[in-house]
Amino acid sequence: MKQVPAIGVDLGGQNLRIALVTPAGIVREGIQLPVGSDRSAAAVARQIGEGIRAIVAKEGGVRLPVGCGIPGIVDADQGLVHASPNFPPWHDEPIASMISAECGCDVHIDNDANLHALGEAVRGAGRGHRNTVMLTLGTGIGGGLVFDGRVFHGDAGFAGEVGHIVVEPEGPVCGCGGRGCLELYAAARGFRLLASRLPSAERDALLAAAGLDLSALTPEVMARLDDAGERIARQLWQEFGRYLGIGIATLVNVLGVMTFVIGGGITRSWERFQEEARRSALEHTYPHHAERLRLLRAELGEDAGVLGAAIHACAE
Amino acid sequence: MKQVPAIGVDLGGQNLRIALVTPAGIVREGIQLPVGSDRSAAAVARQIGEGIRAIVAKEGGVRLPVGCGIPGIVDADQGLVHASPNFPPWHDEPIASMISAECGCDVHIDNDANLHALGEAVRGAGRGHRNTVMLTLGTGIGGGLVFDGRVFHGDAGFAGEVGHIVVEPEGPVCGCGGRGCLELYAAARGFRLLASRLPSAERDALLAAAGLDLSALTPEVMARLDDAGERIARQLWQEFGRYLGIGIATLVNVLGVMTFVIGGGITRSWERFQEEARRSALEHTYPHHAERLRLLRAELGEDAGVLGAAIHACAE
Repeated sequence: MKQVPAIGVDLGGQNLRIALVTPAGIVREGIQLPVGSDRSAAAVARQIGEGIRAIVAKEGGVRLPVGCGIPGIVDADQGLVHASPNFPPWHDEPIASMISAECGCDVHIDNDANLHALGEAVRGAGRGHRNTVMLTLGTGIGGGLVFDGRVFHGDAGFAGEVGHIVVEPEGPVCGCGGRGCLELYAAARGFRLLASRLPSAERDALLAAAGLDLSALTPEVMARLDDAGERIARQLWQEFGRYLGIGIATLVNVLGVMTFVIGGGITRSWERFQEEARRSALEHTYPHHAERLRLLRAELGEDAGVLGAAIHACAE
Repeated sequence: MKQVPAIGVDLGGQNLRIALVTPAGIVREGIQLPVGSDRSAAAVARQIGEGIRAIVAKEGGVRLPVGCGIPGIVDADQGLVHASPNFPPWHDEPIASMISAECGCDVHIDNDANLHALGEAVRGAGRGHRNTVMLTLGTGIGGGLVFDGRVFHGDAGFAGEVGHIVVEPEGPVCGCGGRGCLELYAAARGFRLLASRLPSAERDALLAAAGLDLSALTPEVMARLDDAGERIARQLWQEFGRYLGIGIATLVNVLGVMTFVIGGGITRSWERFQEEARRSALEHTYPHHAERLRLLRAELGEDAGVLGAAIHACAE
């Protein structure tokens, strides 16, 4: 891997971050701005290119390598974005070369969750570990597999869909078309399902304490109820952790990887679920893994994306 | 990868196979013999070394690279076998250098299931595909992950324990210490569990047709009952396939790999379960994977081990 400054770009559905990253992994010259209203590939590439040019100009015009994380189905080798839920007009757009044409730098793209995982694996909670799996707990669960300092893509660029590990074969239908996927239980939306399975008296008591209906049981509400000493809230955080651990156990057994970095807003409640997640992971795998299994809380926050993108820029 | 002849060794609990493998992947000069009664590491290394020397002598004394598959917990990088259920006296044995000292050739070892998977991936049913997961359905389920023509080991050399994907979180306890592992349902032993969950009238009818008790419901018995038109036997083969498909779906979602090679004696009943395995895998993953997902029956039989070992010998 080249040890040079690089530019990391993290394109989200709403915001665009662009930063200069030093060889030591320090984020400098950060720009954050809203994505423009014209969401065509040409317009977004132009906006990203302008941001890159501004940083290049500040650096005396040196053409730095650029890495760019993009939400959607990305072919990193070809520099193509097949489709993106955040940018509906995009179909097989050669975004890497479009951005390159705007800024004159070499541009390497990958899926944004993969580059978040790469950032955390190399510069964040996973640093020093050979292989890392990242799980980002949001509305669903994003993920990324980083083996030997590189993102593993599988056959079609969609490796790391860890939210769709099947944890309840007869569970409810998931947005992926499957059933009983991990993200139905151990992500923000999970509390609605977990609460709906409670005996009705317990469920009613929980909703009365919350003063809300089932659909409003967010992690924030559940954290507030737990802080207020609601026993059922505590129990559902344990259930949340238990399912997360089952998914992690499957990852341990399949991949033989022992380092897991867990990110996303729900990690504000880390202490509410991490112990149960660990216990459950160890319950579902070989007991001798106990001393090697590491469940680590993500460290880099928003910087993970631009850091991972800068690492990706230098990976060739 | 060097294109040279190599010697492949496949050590089993009972038998030892040693073969010369040509650069084109043709198995020649095969030796098969029972493992000697002295099961110490020194004695087994000596026996393997003698077999290699016999082949080297026939080849005019040229020292060929040797690959060797060994059952147990193997550190391929270090050439160590930490432990082996088939060779209880072994503890952290430097088997690669012990065999090398006996035969004068460079020796590279790996877990036997990994090298079976490598053989099938490169020379067998998986040839031409970039990434392959192998599942060997025996008493349990062995496995191996082959990415870009190489075995993936994870952190501790035990990647590919696909039999321990959790498919029923509240299922029975498994030998690994976990619960509800795939191999409790979709391997030879699975039929006992699947039959035990039947309504009692159906279970009794099945056992009466078999003239056997529950513990005797092997795949061979189930195949015979299916051939005889027993409806419940057909139904249990579907259940077997359904669970296999759930495990495969999780592998698709985690790894983004679309090529699965399925081996082991139960594949004699391939037509009884493969369609349901495929249906179930697609039910639990993104629908657009349908046209790319390949469930392939292993092709190489016993040769997979020595072929994979020879490929491993030339991988450096």
